[in-house]
Parts: sequence; C-alpha cells; structure tokens
Amino acid sequence: MHTVNVPLGERSYDIEIGMSLDQAGPQLKGLGLGQKLAVVVNPTVKELYAKRVVESLKAQGFMVMSIIIPDGEQYKNLDWANAIYTALLTNAFDRKSAIVALGGGVIGDLAGFAAATYMRGIPFVQVPTTLLAMVDSSVGGKTGVNHPMAKNMIGAFHQPRKVLMDLDVLRTLPKAEFLSGMAEVIKYGVIWDADFFDYLDNNRDRILGLDADALAHIIRRSCEIKAEVVGKDEREGGLRAILNFGHTVGHAIEKAENYRMRHGEAVAIGMVYASRLAHLTALCDATVPERVEKLIASYGLPTDLRALSRKPTVQELMDTMQIDKKAEGGRVKFVLPKKIGEVVVTKAWEEQRLRELLAG
Amino acid sequence: MHTVNVPLGERSYDIEIGMSLDQAGPQLKGLGLGQKLAVVVNPTVKELYAKRVVESLKAQGFMVMSIIIPDGEQYKNLDWANAIYTALLTNAFDRKSAIVALGGGVIGDLAGFAAATYMRGIPFVQVPTTLLAMVDSSVGGKTGVNHPMAKNMIGAFHQPRKVLMDLDVLRTLPKAEFLSGMAEVIKYGVIWDADFFDYLDNNRDRILGLDADALAHIIRRSCEIKAEVVGKDEREGGLRAILNFGHTVGHAIEKAENYRMRHGEAVAIGMVYASRLAHLTALCDATVPERVEKLIASYGLPTDLRALSRKPTVQELMDTMQIDKKAEGGRVKFVLPKKIGEVVVTKAWEEQRLRELLAG
Repeated sequence: MHTVNVPLGERSYDIEIGMSLDQAGPQLKGLGLGQKLAVVVNPTVKELYAKRVVESLKAQGFMVMSIIIPDGEQYKNLDWANAIYTALLTNAFDRKSAIVALGGGVIGDLAGFAAATYMRGIPFVQVPTTLLAMVDSSVGGKTGVNHPMAKNMIGAFHQPRKVLMDLDVLRTLPKAEFLSGMAEVIKYGVIWDADFFDYLDNNRDRILGLDADALAHIIRRSCEIKAEVVGKDEREGGLRAILNFGHTVGHAIEKAENYRMRHGEAVAIGMVYASRLAHLTALCDATVPERVEKLIASYGLPTDLRALSRKPTVQELMDTMQIDKKAEGGRVKFVLPKKIGEVVVTKAWEEQRLRELLAG
Repeated sequence: MHTVNVPLGERSYDIEIGMSLDQAGPQLKGLGLGQKLAVVVNPTVKELYAKRVVESLKAQGFMVMSIIIPDGEQYKNLDWANAIYTALLTNAFDRKSAIVALGGGVIGDLAGFAAATYMRGIPFVQVPTTLLAMVDSSVGGKTGVNHPMAKNMIGAFHQPRKVLMDLDVLRTLPKAEFLSGMAEVIKYGVIWDADFFDYLDNNRDRILGLDADALAHIIRRSCEIKAEVVGKDEREGGLRAILNFGHTVGHAIEKAENYRMRHGEAVAIGMVYASRLAHLTALCDATVPERVEKLIASYGLPTDLRALSRKPTVQELMDTMQIDKKAEGGRVKFVLPKKIGEVVVTKAWEEQRLRELLAG
C-alpha cells in the first residue's frame, strides 16, 4: 500500500492506494468521526462491493446506513442531494456523522456536495471505484451537482477526510470506463511530467492488461501531481486551472452529447483540440499535438468530433464554452501546452483559429 | 461611519456601520469584483431601497440585475436557491460576478448560500436592512436554506466581501422586527459583556427612540463581540457555540410555531429558559435569570411559552432539540450563563429540570 498526502494545512488528508475494501473499518477508525455513517452508493456498485465495506465498518462499531442513488449522471442534481439530506435528518445524523462515497465521480460529487452542505459541512470519506474517480475527483475537494443548464454549476469545495483505493475493483470496471479514466491520466503527463507521458507510451500493454504494479504507479503518480497542484492552489485562483487542460472543449462536447458521452472521452478530444490550438497560436511546435493525439488514440480513445453521435455546430460549442465556469468577463481561458510536460493558462488565443479547428 | 473588521485571515472583511445606501457603488468599487452584480431582494425592500442601491452601483459601471424573492421564511429553500442559479446562468454570471444581498436574514442566508455554491463560490456583499441581520447574520459567514424537516439544515460557510449598513433603514422597519433584533443584542451582553448589558438597561428610551448614536453604539458593539468570537473560531469548533445562547429552546419554539414566530422573540424566550436552567443546575445565582428576564421584558419581548399561539408539549420541544445541529451523539449542548457577561457550553444539565421548566 502507498500513501499520497494532499497537503492542505488543517484540511490535509491521505490517499491510501492499494488497500483492501475489507480494511475500510480500521482505516476510518481514528479519524475522530461520530458513530453514524451513511454509505452513498449506486445499485451496481452496491451489488459488487457495498457488503464488504459495510461489514468492515460495522465490525469497528460504526452504525451504517446505505443511501442508494440511481446509476447515472442525470441523478447528480439538487433533488438527489435533497434526498440525501432527508435520509440524514430522518436518521438524526449530526455534525460528527460522516458520509462515505462508494462509487465513481457521480457518487463522489453528489455525496461530497451533500456532506459539504448538510449542517454546513460534515466529514466525508471517498472510496472511488473507477479509475477516473481515483485519479481525478479523489484529489482536490471539488464537489457539486449539475444544473439543467450546465454541468457542475452548483457546488462547494469540501476536502475528504481520507480516500481509500482498492485497485482490485478496477477488474470489474467496464473497459470503456477504464479508458475514460486513462484520458485524465494522460492529461497529467501533458501538463506536468514528460517522463510520465513517456511511461504511458512505453507501458501500454501492462496498463491495459491491468498489471497491478503498473496500475499502482499511474494512479500514484496522477494523485501526486494533482496533490502538488492543488496543494499550491486549493481554490483555483491560479495554477489549479491547468488541470482543466482538455476540459474547455471537453465540457462543450459533453453538453452537445447531452452528457451521454463519457467524461474522459470528451476530455480526450478536448486535449487534441487544445494541443492543435496551441500549435496554431505558435505556443508549441507541431510534434506536440501529434504526440498527444497519437498517445490518446493508442489507448483507444477518440480524438475528434467525428466520435460524437451528431456533429455539433461550431456556434453551439462556442456558446457553451462561454458559459463555462472557466470563462471570466466573457473571455474563455484555455489551457495550452508549450511542450509535453508544461502548459500555460491564457486568454491569448485566436477565436477564428478555434472555429476553423472545430469546423474540421 | 465606523468600520468593524472581522478578522479571518485571507477571508477578513469590513463592516461599514452608518454609511448611506447611495454610497454602495463606491464601497464596492475596489473589491476586485467582476462587472456583473445581482441584487437579491424581496418586494418590500425593493420598493423602499433597491433603486438607490442599484443606481449607485450602475454609476460605478456595474451591470446590475435584480432577483426578486417572495417575502417570507418559507421561501428560504432549495427551490429558490435554484431560481437564483438559473437567473445567474441565464445572464452568464461567471466566478467574478457577485451577489448583493439587500434585505434581512432570509435574503442574506438564501443569497449567501447561492453565492457559496454557484460555481463553488462567488463573491457576495451584504446590505442588511433589519436590526437582526445587522447584528447577527452579517458577521460570521453562515449561509443556508431550510429543509422541510428542520431549519437551516442545508448550508455553507461563506464570508461576505463587505457588509454595508445604512442605519436609516431601521426607521422603516416594523417595531416588532426591531425588537426581534434587540433580543440578539441583549444576547451579546449576557454572553460577553456585562457593561454592555448595563448600557442596554440604562439607555432603553434612546434605543427604542432610534437615537442615531445609541443605535450606532449597540450595532457596533454587537458586531465587535460577534467578530471577536468568530475570529477565534470560524467554523464553530468550540467558542463560537456560545452565540447559540437562547437558540436551543428558541429553535424548538420556532419549529413548534411553524416558523411564524419571529426569530428574536423565540430566542428571547429561549434565553430566559436557559438562564433558569443554569440557575437550577447551580451554575449561577438566582439574580441572573431574574435580570435576563427583566431586561428582555423591558424591551417588550416575550419571556415564556405563553406567548406562543398554542402550548407545545414538552416532548415535542425535546424532540426538536435532539435533531438540532448543536446536538452531538444525541446529547444536546446548552449554552448556560455563569453570570451576566459569561457563559459555558455544556452537556451537563439535567433533563428532568428542563422538562419541568418547559412544562411550566
């Protein structure tokens, strides 16, 4: 087992990579939590893993309630957050009671938001069961729900007290979900660590074969990079924005697909477009978008808008980017690579170039 | 004009006591806000004061939208928070756009919660128009909405960037609303400052006559005391709990009255019961409940359960206290006076004594 610390002062916490779900109870013991825990989970993950987690928690004397959320991004909304509040109130959860989010990003974001806002914040623990949740949402404390008009528009920063990762759960994860997570893993190579980018290029077969050491390495390195970035900028005042590489176009694609495309797939396409835009803006040479596109494609991820179920208009994509959280004063900030391993956040990009790229 | 600083590190902010609403624009200039502002207000306050605030803001180049919330505690809920999100999204508000809460506690709590959770937090400015909002909710960053099962159960800590108080607005405040605020003012004397308690006793006529200097003094001193307490304990880990003096029984009364009794009136009654409980628990001598009750009554505030529209059962009140946020591990913590100017937070009180007091 390897521990990655997320350094946030009094809100610091540890990510335990490679523990067993059967150790959830002992891991939570000693965090100073109250006796009542609510495990938030969807039916699929409940069937596979909830029993082991719940029994381990009960063995340590916790009183455990399960809150079942239907499976799907469309349930990450205020109504289901309210359903969680109601369950907590009905069971007299107090400020020391804790929420355990057992699942992927939807469960983590929703349960985390409920924890952030129930009684103005109660402790929460994340037990991510997807690669995407492990390498992305487990670090940094972003929680939230969707608004009908745009994704993740309602939320709060709320750091977990601990993150527990049993890598064996990835063996039951659908292949396409695993690859979606790989898009975010690749992102860390592009924005921060050229050696890691090379590692991903040189160890494709081990990674795709779910080799335990290779998985532990890429998850650990991804968490380390995100922890370093977030530790320097918890509330996204500056540096943290680099984590949005690929996400500006990516979010517009998700919206255009009505959130039926996987997040990582949309981000994969977004990274390719951002890299091309960087080259057209003379920030990097032509090899950067080429290498980014090649690595993404080699992991079976989509690289352009033809992967969408319908071709969105350029204006539609531009409009969504405009309303995106990363826009400020109406001008969208793009994260663009200067080289593999280094990016800049800039408003200095040419709208006409982007429109041409998106028009194909 | 007098400035009270709320010392919270990078989240510190100033309360400007005695400014004019016509100076709202210049006061907000220089806070580094974006161009777009949303003034959240109810119809009553809009009619009286919104125009002056909006014109002052526009004169400084801000683009100002008004969001009207119906008048009443029953609209402080998730649905109306969502209505604010929708208005902000529709008008492409970004992370630098700000919310101005112009009104009493309901508007401040609701607009503050929307600001805390829109895009995970945007700036907000409070312009309280009731005495209660000036001396209570303007300091400390508590925001939130009600859940059908209990008040203020959903919320977040989110500090305002500035608080602007034009004391002239108190001249249009209904007398009963003013007195409701006085209950919280009296609270500060009991929990922190015996001299202030005496001041309130000796200057009743000036205060009730809305003498400008007396008003400025009691608001300033109330804000100073709350700022000192909150500055030492932003997230209510310890000391801040003393601000809940009178609120444990008070909240149970509000619930029993279906939130149709004013907050300050319920707190006034709660302070009397807490003071009597303190005496019965041998924490203070008999003069403390006597003096507390006498001062409260002298300001025309209710002092016992006979002021309710119906007499609640003791069990009903006990049950509500149990689910209150201040309960931990099932045991309610009471704030009890040791003398005028000093209180303790304790679980060591006798349930039977409280039941007898409540039974009357």
